[in-house]
Amino acid sequence: MLLGDRLDTIGKVALRVVLVEDPTVEVTAAMKAGFRVVHGHVGSMNLEKVIAAIETASRREGIVSVEYPEDHALYHSILDALHGVGRGQLALGSILRTAGLRFSVVRGPRVAGEVGRGEWLAVALYGHIGGPVKGNEHECVGLGIYHLGR
Amino acid sequence: MLLGDRLDTIGKVALRVVLVEDPTVEVTAAMKAGFRVVHGHVGSMNLEKVIAAIETASRREGIVSVEYPEDHALYHSILDALHGVGRGQLALGSILRTAGLRFSVVRGPRVAGEVGRGEWLAVALYGHIGGPVKGNEHECVGLGIYHLGR
Amino acid sequence: MLLGDRLDTIGKVALRVVLVEDPTVEVTAAMKAGFRVVHGHVGSMNLEKVIAAIETASRREGIVSVEYPEDHALYHSILDALHGVGRGQLALGSILRTAGLRFSVVRGPRVAGEVGRGEWLAVALYGHIGGPVKGNEHECVGLGIYHLGR
Amino acid sequence: MLLGDRLDTIGKVALRVVLVEDPTVEVTAAMKAGFRVVHGHVGSMNLEKVIAAIETASRREGIVSVEYPEDHALYHSILDALHGVGRGQLALGSILRTAGLRFSVVRGPRVAGEVGRGEWLAVALYGHIGGPVKGNEHECVGLGIYHLGR
Amino acid sequence: MLLGDRLDTIGKVALRVVLVEDPTVEVTAAMKAGFRVVHGHVGSMNLEKVIAAIETASRREGIVSVEYPEDHALYHSILDALHGVGRGQLALGSILRTAGLRFSVVRGPRVAGEVGRGEWLAVALYGHIGGPVKGNEHECVGLGIYHLGR
Amino acid sequence: MLLGDRLDTIGKVALRVVLVEDPTVEVTAAMKAGFRVVHGHVGSMNLEKVIAAIETASRREGIVSVEYPEDHALYHSILDALHGVGRGQLALGSILRTAGLRFSVVRGPRVAGEVGRGEWLAVALYGHIGGPVKGNEHECVGLGIYHLGR
Repeated sequence: MLLGDRLDTIGKVALRVVLVEDPTVEVTAAMKAGFRVVHGHVGSMNLEKVIAAIETASRREGIVSVEYPEDHALYHSILDALHGVGRGQLALGSILRTAGLRFSVVRGPRVAGEVGRGEWLAVALYGHIGGPVKGNEHECVGLGIYHLGR
Repeated sequence: MLLGDRLDTIGKVALRVVLVEDPTVEVTAAMKAGFRVVHGHVGSMNLEKVIAAIETASRREGIVSVEYPEDHALYHSILDALHGVGRGQLALGSILRTAGLRFSVVRGPRVAGEVGRGEWLAVALYGHIGGPVKGNEHECVGLGIYHLGR
Repeated sequence: MLLGDRLDTIGKVALRVVLVEDPTVEVTAAMKAGFRVVHGHVGSMNLEKVIAAIETASRREGIVSVEYPEDHALYHSILDALHGVGRGQLALGSILRTAGLRFSVVRGPRVAGEVGRGEWLAVALYGHIGGPVKGNEHECVGLGIYHLGR
Repeated sequence: MLLGDRLDTIGKVALRVVLVEDPTVEVTAAMKAGFRVVHGHVGSMNLEKVIAAIETASRREGIVSVEYPEDHALYHSILDALHGVGRGQLALGSILRTAGLRFSVVRGPRVAGEVGRGEWLAVALYGHIGGPVKGNEHECVGLGIYHLGR
Repeated sequence: MLLGDRLDTIGKVALRVVLVEDPTVEVTAAMKAGFRVVHGHVGSMNLEKVIAAIETASRREGIVSVEYPEDHALYHSILDALHGVGRGQLALGSILRTAGLRFSVVRGPRVAGEVGRGEWLAVALYGHIGGPVKGNEHECVGLGIYHLGR
Repeated sequence: MLLGDRLDTIGKVALRVVLVEDPTVEVTAAMKAGFRVVHGHVGSMNLEKVIAAIETASRREGIVSVEYPEDHALYHSILDALHGVGRGQLALGSILRTAGLRFSVVRGPRVAGEVGRGEWLAVALYGHIGGPVKGNEHECVGLGIYHLGR
């Protein structure tokens, strides 16, 4: 049995939010379990716009502070999630592909109720990636998790 | 709205199966929707053992043929899913980390009921990755999707 | 002895076509051996233009269908071939280099006359890569092969 | 027209040698055109054995000196050629694949007869790569070129 | 002028320690400026042994806690530093090369005296990397920096 | 003891020059020890501008010839140094980060006074890398070394 299988974990919370069109139920459950959640969607051929959209939403909602340590954790969580989306290349338009993604940013313990093991940040991405021919695209997913502090 | 949000898609089917400890409900629903599913779990510091475990389960259940075209699709789907798990490095023990993963292999159309757009293969991975100190690990996810044929 | 040394193989067919300025003889021999061939050349500092040129030529000549499964095979064959050209980085202008390339796209069995082992797609690239100083460039080659179906 | 299309170039010389089972004709022509050539074959699941086989043959035939500058050029030429073979990962057995390769190492000018533009080293690789199931493998190619000195 | 040019910064402190054979002076100055420092050396063809040596020294000296958040920061700082050493591949023996490295782990603010911008961890590596032929090696360096918390 | 610990080595010379704001002392000492040195600084979100700035300064000062062999050594030294700066991705603006860097290019033997082991080129980079929020950046370093000839 994997850690937290009977409980909510930060990664599963983040993934559930992006796997449905309207995550109201998932967000409410996550908040009750002690997590903070921001979510949204972004489509682009420019990876920097995907990163900027997630950073902007996170700062606007205050899920991370504007100070550099939390900003640093957010950036690396996003990059790690993009590795799952890009599968070998952190690039979109420069290798002639585009992505439409839903994103979630979740802050909390690794496992609901866990105390004293630090606060963490999870970024989940889910959507479609493909070429410029409409409909020629398939699903992709990514998850990045970094520590915020003790 | 992303493609297939109101319907089952091959990637979401594969992800739902690995996100729960007992995926009986998810597998049954997927089969009714026209997908074939194999799932299991594997833990190792050797990436080749992770790949071999998924390939062996897939062949044993006959979800892919032993012929090279389908074997090739399976291998590349696994590698793509491992990019999400490894986030920059397709390596485990050689960079001092280990992974415990649940896997699913799903065969079918990209979207439940879609006809004439080809048959596809999706490999999903979900679990934990971390160092040799027990408990020092966090969640990871990956999804790889390749075409099988028209 | 490697597979197909006495016979034409899809990869060698693709490579022979790009290794000569006028591949009329090579293309004719390949067609007689049961392969379909498209070829051309492209020079750019933008990798997406290289990819687009190969995709456009392939679709115009009908060597792949417009449906996504074959489009997906073509895209991944091109990316794999570009790994040989880029040797570590799938990038041109963004790391201050340019490429002039001949390309071939070949469709058929892995080995001339092979039956029942699937239909495959090979993309070969050959040309020069280098910096913006004229003449400061050296040769490069790449080959990508993906399955099309049974 | 690409550089040297009417002449022998170091990269095309290296590729022609590995594309045939018996390269006697190609080697003789290359030597007449002013190139030195070493060739052989190696099969392994260990990348370091592939590298060692090429280095050993090159030193034994004296195509590079034992001094570090030429050894350094040889090593980087091999690694660059392996990027074409590995297409994204410089790894064989650790991602459950094996390779059977012919190799050539060619020393000379970039273009036959070119004077004063430096001496160069080219390493070409051609063969098959695939999984542990016999016959489930496809062709691969790689070319690495580095300067030796003025 | 770069940040902290007139002051000690965590990265320069870490680099100065590995650039000399006996860093007693550098370590003493760093401690006076408010940094904590661990240093040592390790030589191996196995990257996991390099990582383990740095982790073990860091834990033994208590520069990071055994809790996962700080362990996670240390691991990623080491990996980032190894990118500078490996230059494209996080691999040693598997691509036939070995490394002899001095390492330092430094904990403190980004700039000496900076308050309220978080606590950081820097890992610096300096040494030699090369093939199995004795003396055929050149210098390499790497620096990885991660946040520890606010 | 690492090679050259009691002597100047080309890598340490290059690193010392970029680690201080005014490297007059370091450059003078390096020249007395038999090295040639060029240095400068560049800030950009475009990696190609960083590469171009180093190449332009190097050619203007004549530290490398305009001929391709030395140009090739310079380019690969820069790319290798950028691996330390980029830590996994040779990209700046396309993944929403910017860098301010000091660079040095040093030409000479691997170790001061070493004769007959070839002439080498070292490129060192030191500076800051981070996101578009002012002040949210940390230090980075890189070192690339290539042979010039015997």
